[in-house]
Amino acid sequence: MALSKNKIKLIQSLSKKKYRDEMGLFVAEGEKLIHQLLAAQFKFQTLIATPLMMEQFSTSNGDLVEASYDEIKKISSLITPQEVVAIFYQPKNNLPEALQKNELMIALDDIQDPGNLGTIIRLASWFGIKQVICSLKTADCYNSKVIQATMGAIAHVNIYYSNLKDFLETAHRQQIKVYGTFLEGDNIYQSALLPDGIIVMGNEGNGISPDIEKLIDHKLFIPTFATNGQNVESLNVSVAAAIICSEFKRKTI
Amino acid sequence: MALSKNKIKLIQSLSKKKYRDEMGLFVAEGEKLIHQLLAAQFKFQTLIATPLMMEQFSTSNGDLVEASYDEIKKISSLITPQEVVAIFYQPKNNLPEALQKNELMIALDDIQDPGNLGTIIRLASWFGIKQVICSLKTADCYNSKVIQATMGAIAHVNIYYSNLKDFLETAHRQQIKVYGTFLEGDNIYQSALLPDGIIVMGNEGNGISPDIEKLIDHKLFIPTFATNGQNVESLNVSVAAAIICSEFKRKTI
Repeated sequence: MALSKNKIKLIQSLSKKKYRDEMGLFVAEGEKLIHQLLAAQFKFQTLIATPLMMEQFSTSNGDLVEASYDEIKKISSLITPQEVVAIFYQPKNNLPEALQKNELMIALDDIQDPGNLGTIIRLASWFGIKQVICSLKTADCYNSKVIQATMGAIAHVNIYYSNLKDFLETAHRQQIKVYGTFLEGDNIYQSALLPDGIIVMGNEGNGISPDIEKLIDHKLFIPTFATNGQNVESLNVSVAAAIICSEFKRKTI
Repeated sequence: MALSKNKIKLIQSLSKKKYRDEMGLFVAEGEKLIHQLLAAQFKFQTLIATPLMMEQFSTSNGDLVEASYDEIKKISSLITPQEVVAIFYQPKNNLPEALQKNELMIALDDIQDPGNLGTIIRLASWFGIKQVICSLKTADCYNSKVIQATMGAIAHVNIYYSNLKDFLETAHRQQIKVYGTFLEGDNIYQSALLPDGIIVMGNEGNGISPDIEKLIDHKLFIPTFATNGQNVESLNVSVAAAIICSEFKRKTI
């Protein structure tokens, strides 16, 4: 099968969230990422590869389309296009009906940058965190920048979009503890942290919104070690998430 | 003074490392970042702002050029241009002749992504790390993507480019301990870490190079908490740097 104009149009349309939502599809690029998605039982609708690259995918289910590297370059969203691009079906992620009480989860309150979202999904996977609950205004995890930034971790994390306030209220009723970082919080290095609960990470510019702040049970604080006294330091939200997850997890060892 | 064609050409040329090096200049955009650079005694050659924005810079030294927002949009490298752009002089960073033994430093072995470099500089500042030594193949810290990603932290960190092997050999002779992360290293959470030394972070794709590995005194390892057994997890280098710095610093409390 050759690369048709319709497939090219489809891939281009999938750069828009509207069409990704409507069709329940997303695009992934590169050998390593696509292998990881396949290993995690993701299914593709169409896989487009150079003849040489196609060999290793020839037994996969779904449409297989051979294309030249020049053709792939035209449909790629990457600065350095790779030799394989695939259109995958979005998994149907649902939160378990009863939240697991013995599990650590991450909730995102309007994370806007796709790179940050991708990095957070990747580190969630690293720390064995299987549920990431996103507010409805958080960036779309099927955005190609997010997919690529996860480096395949999207295959191992259940990402769920929900009204975050409702979700946290439900968690409260189930006595699941909710954590967030605030300037007036307890020093995270010196706080006892339980192996379960929900870590809320706030928007890049505004932090955790007032509505959500009310639902935080334990306010934490990451202290700076800067000594210049100018107090201009801040942490990128994905770096802050990494430090928080690292502290939670090391305390379970 | 109006925005001349020559200034526009100068700003465009500064998107290339070659011209930044030759002229010892770099470009910074946005009110907050520029204020932080000025507060840290950075000097600008030219500052270009809308008339309204110019008011707060009117007493600064250097050429002041008023421009319309449309003109600024044309010279901006940002997706959302701000109302002020400035051409700064690069500071002359030098390592102190004798390395400080009671100080924690970061060394970068060919970090390629400007976003990662910017994030690492930002977190170095957060953790009070004042020296970042970059291998000669590490991305240029005056690249506009790096400058913007540091969020002003570049004003508080001494960034130095050097032959990394020579630098680490000198450190060795001065009995400064060199750390790096490797799969066969000691679990970082369970390792005693001193408050001083040099943390080496490796290239995004290849990790720490063999030549540099020989100069590592203490190999550390960040354990994953993933339980899917597929071992596909990896950490972004800036996230790994954050976890390592956090572990070093919390152990000094």
